[in-house]
Amino acid sequence: MSDVGQFRKVVIANRGEIAVRIIRACKELGIQSVAVYSEADRDALHVQLADEAYCIGPFASKDSYLRFDNLISVAMLTGADAIHPGYGFLAENADFAELCSSVNIKFIGPSASAIARMGDKSSAKQTMKEAQVPVIPGSDGIIDSTEEAIRIAGDIGYPVIIKATAGGGGKGIRVVHDKEELIRQVTAAKQEAQMAFGNAGVYLEKFLTGMKHVEIQIMADHHGNVVHLGERDCSIQRRRQKLVEESPCPTLTSEIRRLMGEAAVRAAKAVNYTGAGTLEFLLGEDGSFYFMEMNTRIQVEHPVTEMVTGVDIVQEMIRVAEGNQLSFRQEDVDMRGCAIECRINAEDPARNFMPSPGRIQFYLPPGGFGVRVDSAVYVDYTIPPHYDSMIAKLIVWGKNRDDAIARMQRALGEFFIEGVRTTIPFHQRLLQHPIFVGGSFDIKFLEEYNVNTPKDAPEP
Amino acid sequence: MSDVGQFRKVVIANRGEIAVRIIRACKELGIQSVAVYSEADRDALHVQLADEAYCIGPFASKDSYLRFDNLISVAMLTGADAIHPGYGFLAENADFAELCSSVNIKFIGPSASAIARMGDKSSAKQTMKEAQVPVIPGSDGIIDSTEEAIRIAGDIGYPVIIKATAGGGGKGIRVVHDKEELIRQVTAAKQEAQMAFGNAGVYLEKFLTGMKHVEIQIMADHHGNVVHLGERDCSIQRRRQKLVEESPCPTLTSEIRRLMGEAAVRAAKAVNYTGAGTLEFLLGEDGSFYFMEMNTRIQVEHPVTEMVTGVDIVQEMIRVAEGNQLSFRQEDVDMRGCAIECRINAEDPARNFMPSPGRIQFYLPPGGFGVRVDSAVYVDYTIPPHYDSMIAKLIVWGKNRDDAIARMQRALGEFFIEGVRTTIPFHQRLLQHPIFVGGSFDIKFLEEYNVNTPKDAPEP
Repeated sequence: MSDVGQFRKVVIANRGEIAVRIIRACKELGIQSVAVYSEADRDALHVQLADEAYCIGPFASKDSYLRFDNLISVAMLTGADAIHPGYGFLAENADFAELCSSVNIKFIGPSASAIARMGDKSSAKQTMKEAQVPVIPGSDGIIDSTEEAIRIAGDIGYPVIIKATAGGGGKGIRVVHDKEELIRQVTAAKQEAQMAFGNAGVYLEKFLTGMKHVEIQIMADHHGNVVHLGERDCSIQRRRQKLVEESPCPTLTSEIRRLMGEAAVRAAKAVNYTGAGTLEFLLGEDGSFYFMEMNTRIQVEHPVTEMVTGVDIVQEMIRVAEGNQLSFRQEDVDMRGCAIECRINAEDPARNFMPSPGRIQFYLPPGGFGVRVDSAVYVDYTIPPHYDSMIAKLIVWGKNRDDAIARMQRALGEFFIEGVRTTIPFHQRLLQHPIFVGGSFDIKFLEEYNVNTPKDAPEP
Repeated sequence: MSDVGQFRKVVIANRGEIAVRIIRACKELGIQSVAVYSEADRDALHVQLADEAYCIGPFASKDSYLRFDNLISVAMLTGADAIHPGYGFLAENADFAELCSSVNIKFIGPSASAIARMGDKSSAKQTMKEAQVPVIPGSDGIIDSTEEAIRIAGDIGYPVIIKATAGGGGKGIRVVHDKEELIRQVTAAKQEAQMAFGNAGVYLEKFLTGMKHVEIQIMADHHGNVVHLGERDCSIQRRRQKLVEESPCPTLTSEIRRLMGEAAVRAAKAVNYTGAGTLEFLLGEDGSFYFMEMNTRIQVEHPVTEMVTGVDIVQEMIRVAEGNQLSFRQEDVDMRGCAIECRINAEDPARNFMPSPGRIQFYLPPGGFGVRVDSAVYVDYTIPPHYDSMIAKLIVWGKNRDDAIARMQRALGEFFIEGVRTTIPFHQRLLQHPIFVGGSFDIKFLEEYNVNTPKDAPEP
């Protein structure tokens, strides 16, 4: 894997803004780009910007963007050296990565084994423990007795959560605050779990509140070099969907940043990771942090890291897949200013974020100093209803966080999109909320923050 | 002048992209913006983006954008604290600056006396000499005798130019390479000047070749602080019009940068300069540099400096005019990477850059990492024929010059403008020219570089 050879041609196995993002990186590196598209995406911008484009099936993703055979065929027939999966679709599919490798097409991402090992929650958690990366404290699997529960809760400290191993989506969860409550609730939880899920198994985890979602971007090459590019605060989430991301995290100290960064590098080294990856952590107010999961791909929010570090992450992914060493060392990474990203979705915030596909009648993105737009739409483009509703990412840079917020407000105010409803009004209100401006919001913030103000009321 | 008070409202006495640029800075600083427009500019973007907008006259600049009375009236009637002149129009008009001052409206720029002193070429040159800023060596005015010419030429070194004091536009100029030639030509030049211009006066200047146009951006406050923000190489010029600018200058050493920067700071201090200003120099291959002129205003090409230093120059101009100290010191200025700007003009490069006004039928600016667009056009906007033909500035940042050139090529290739001819094809060719890529071009480069290749041939 350490032989270096520049790619001549890369297939982009994706659509939308991330396909455009990857085509741009290819062009800047002098690499030919091959777009693929579903029948619903004939007019998509990525199809127009790529050097070649091939239809790979009807609108349904399973019949087009997820079709291993069609994607491999396009790569073989066009003589491509590599496939970039973007995010979503096949980006974290170990089987697809394996298949690419077996037909001698480079998968621009980590090895199939690294994807598989991080894709399984329990093997990922075990790997992190072995790499001395803090994980959420709790029992090792199912607890056998009330005595064991008392011992473990005493070790990790109250409050703790009792979770049904067969539960999910918030069901089968009990928060307990002391030993007496624990004794009562363990028995009740087991009975309830048996009744609800047909499985009495329960386990314990420390109950964490006031946590931020903070993630570390890492880059690794095939020569053993692993570097982290600092963090992103992605705590602004609605139903676990990130809406706003920023770098740096407004509450992170440089000491905790160093510790999280070192933990992320250890984690990547533990699975011989290569390419771009992200370690997601929960960060407590006291600076404690716990591994949640690793995303073994490029992320939607990578631009904020690019804007503060100056590193082109997508170019670097491609260069690493070619066999090159990373173009920078840890000591070269210098975070400058603050960057914020707002995801602009074709959704109606006044109607519970209902998707709002359709024809874009007017489109003028904001410009000027410190403003970046990653998008794949244009005037007269019709947003198809079949895919993700994100139509643009607006990213701004400022010399500090206050500057970046002011610039984002300015840019949101001059982002003209007519014909579909968008989340721009939501972002405009969010960015003036004192808790957002203060920077100490946690992942529960949007649950409490009412986004349905009169300004967003449905049009009469 | 040192009392600090935040402006509530600013009148922007300009149009086009620079008016939009200033409105953006005002919005980011929480300042209300007031646009003015001629009858030809009713649909202009700056009119739509400002908080208020007033028509100040018919299309002709002398009847609108240059009307002192109308501009002052708008400022008075709207209760504005200040006027930002942008570039061109009244930006370097000392009388207008004086008038603003007399009616207690801040002129966002230097004092009238600084404008006047730098606006007159001979007083500017004298001021520079006194500030130990190198000027083009030569005689102090008209030479009286051949003996004096020989002495001066010996001092400044051959080759020298003999220039008729009444000449101009390249007429009445003779280049001489040694003493014998000088003796012959001084007499001939005087006779010719007498015949051609009715004035036998000639003077000597060192003949400089292979020179770059390199300028230093400075910022100064009302508290005596003057800081330079490094240089811009603006040697790519057509008929003295800059077309491409970049920072840093690809051939400048850090030692010469320091010397030029220090000279620029001395020059600014010599005239008690305040606000943003630019010292334009000729830079020789040997690192010698000579003052040409000072521009006492914001410049078209300021974004390249913003992108490498992270300093928002227009915001800083406003803050300085409010009476604030500069927000940075010299040691805070850190140039990162490389930025290049291409001026996109509505001109037909295949028809000798003939203006191409008209309706824009489709418009989609490029986006993504490191790409900035400063423009004032949109789909269905009609470019009026009365003003400057520049419709957009495309500025890119890269971690080094090669990256920036590759990114610019990528961005030019995805800048879609239909309905008018633009200089985009010219820039695409220029950026792949080996002399441009090499970086050692001088101000004569475009005279020799043929822009009329078949690709740009008029459409049949």
